[in-house]
Amino acid sequence: MSDTVGSAEEAVAYIYNSAVAASALSAAWDLGMLDELHDRGEIDAPDFAARRQLDPRSTVGLLRALAAVGIVHRDGTKAVPAAYFAEAYRTRAFFHWLMRGSAQLFREIPEVMMEKNRHGEFCRRDSSAIARACREISALTYDPWFWQAVENLEFKPRRIVDLGCGSGERILRLLRRFPETHGIGIDIAAAAIKDAADDADTADLAARVSFLEADVRTMQSRETFDDVELITCFMMGHDFWPRDDCIGQLRRIRALFPNARRFLLGDATRSAVTHDRKFRTFTLGFELAHDLMGKFLPTVPDWESVFGEGGWSVRRRHFIDLAVGEVIFELDPA
Amino acid sequence: MSDTVGSAEEAVAYIYNSAVAASALSAAWDLGMLDELHDRGEIDAPDFAARRQLDPRSTVGLLRALAAVGIVHRDGTKAVPAAYFAEAYRTRAFFHWLMRGSAQLFREIPEVMMEKNRHGEFCRRDSSAIARACREISALTYDPWFWQAVENLEFKPRRIVDLGCGSGERILRLLRRFPETHGIGIDIAAAAIKDAADDADTADLAARVSFLEADVRTMQSRETFDDVELITCFMMGHDFWPRDDCIGQLRRIRALFPNARRFLLGDATRSAVTHDRKFRTFTLGFELAHDLMGKFLPTVPDWESVFGEGGWSVRRRHFIDLAVGEVIFELDPA
Ligand SMILES: C[S@@+](CC[C@H](N)C(=O)[O-])C[C@H]1O[C@@H](n2cnc3c(N)ncnc32)[C@H](O)[C@@H]1O
Ligand SMILES: C[S@@+](CC[C@H](N)C(=O)[O-])C[C@H]1O[C@@H](n2cnc3c(N)ncnc32)[C@H](O)[C@@H]1O
Repeated sequence: MSDTVGSAEEAVAYIYNSAVAASALSAAWDLGMLDELHDRGEIDAPDFAARRQLDPRSTVGLLRALAAVGIVHRDGTKAVPAAYFAEAYRTRAFFHWLMRGSAQLFREIPEVMMEKNRHGEFCRRDSSAIARACREISALTYDPWFWQAVENLEFKPRRIVDLGCGSGERILRLLRRFPETHGIGIDIAAAAIKDAADDADTADLAARVSFLEADVRTMQSRETFDDVELITCFMMGHDFWPRDDCIGQLRRIRALFPNARRFLLGDATRSAVTHDRKFRTFTLGFELAHDLMGKFLPTVPDWESVFGEGGWSVRRRHFIDLAVGEVIFELDPA
Repeated sequence: MSDTVGSAEEAVAYIYNSAVAASALSAAWDLGMLDELHDRGEIDAPDFAARRQLDPRSTVGLLRALAAVGIVHRDGTKAVPAAYFAEAYRTRAFFHWLMRGSAQLFREIPEVMMEKNRHGEFCRRDSSAIARACREISALTYDPWFWQAVENLEFKPRRIVDLGCGSGERILRLLRRFPETHGIGIDIAAAAIKDAADDADTADLAARVSFLEADVRTMQSRETFDDVELITCFMMGHDFWPRDDCIGQLRRIRALFPNARRFLLGDATRSAVTHDRKFRTFTLGFELAHDLMGKFLPTVPDWESVFGEGGWSVRRRHFIDLAVGEVIFELDPA
């Protein structure tokens, strides 16, 4: 890329400006600026700022940052989408995951990397921002395959549990798809559970869903678990690893939900990128974050090697691999 | 730059990877990895990690991030400087300022931009990291001109005060240059004052210097101020603005230090960059941060317009403009 043109000075300035623009992109999404640019094809900073009660000077500043890397063209206080807008808009959630959800982790790399600090809760992230980003990342990557797997079900589930439910989006959408079904969302992050419960209220689905704050790996059985027929678990399965733990967790999940008929497990897997200059958007940030957090990321063969011992058989697999080796396994109790 | 080659997908991935690499660069400096690469011409992650008690996997991860944007070449766990290493090494403090010192501010752009939040202390930054970065930024930009201005003095100052002293580096170096002189460092940030006092101890200069935690704009006079003959103030003068406040502050400084014979005032000034794709390293981050913080950045003519009314006359000016319109004014009491 940038090493083919221009001086080292320009190239390093571009790296720097990209970092500023990445923050601006994440913020511009939160503030509704990206949607306005997308929907109206232009934005006028003072007008936008007045409508949203934002600081007008900083609003121009954000546009300037986006313009510095070709996401918008700016003319004074006005901007229109530029060459990279469509792709930046498509991948905005990855930027949000990095610059908003994981900013503290990346800021604290020096402390996080010291062995003496690597115990207990040594990483700080923004779980509510991560959940928001993941909702979109899921739409961008897993969704088409996920819904295909849902349509493959040969039964209407009485109850569905979503493990690591994050924003709650998945379970709420499932309840809309199955109007007679009840749901349980489980997440370890209080902030995510709170947001999910609020969204259920807003969506008038609160009567059919409950959200539990719990660690999936250690939670106790509950009465409602008995009629769960569908288990979903997206973007948290790697937390079950390493291998021996994962086999134990898969067995536990079978025991906790004795009447489950299908388990849809979707997750990122460690990439096989061999050239450091060829990372697609997300891979580099995602993998470095997991290295920093000391979290194992299994490969697809790693996963395939645990299902049998864990008490599940693979009915079907969907290799998606749009950003970070996404895969969905349709599992049956063995 | 990157818009001349490759697809939008690659270009946006490069923006993303640059943001990850910018964090990695800042951290690699803190961890001593950049110095090792610079001094030895290579680094071996497991060996380096073992010597510094760092997580070896994350150490490779950092090298991978630097490799993704051409700062190092990586081969397994080993890396050597690549095309952009020298320039990235030179400008490391700007990255540190952004990704470490200002990370919270950029993470919180959406909240910071809302008018309803813009009062009181609405911006969070890491003042000790900023002070550390500024020490290097000063060396990179102001230093040659600063020391020329110091050598221009036609007297040996009895006492020197440094306003907004940050890490204390400047005042300590001045005391080394003038072995009979006493010094005062003043800063509003407790963390910076603490670091400065520690460094004075280490440098065996504690007997000749005192550090005060105070807001320069409101502080009271002290007895020791009477024999201050040299005032220095670097990279904080824009905090005196807007205009009317600045004139008042310049007068106050004259009154607080009645026997001052020279005032060396160095600061960044707002750039006249007219094309959004031409920002050098630092400008974009620096100016957006100040917009977010609601801090006015005067231009050179803005400054020139206040000295007379403020009670000072310009003896000499140094236009440096290496990153963000740096300038040093040598001022005499009018
Ligand atoms: C990357 S998010 C994915 C959220 C959601 N599944 C989706 O598809 O958008 C991972 C979620 O798993 C949750 N999580 C991680 N480990 C967990 C555990 N041991 N028990 C419960 N939740 C967990 C996190 O709090 C986070 O909300
Ligand atoms: C950018 S740093 C520069 C530090 C140092 N002068 C140097 O040259 O490296 C600005 C410093 O000014 C301090 N500062 C800002 N406003 C101040 C005020 N009103 N009173 C005292 N210090 C202030 C900040 O805490 C920070 O340490």
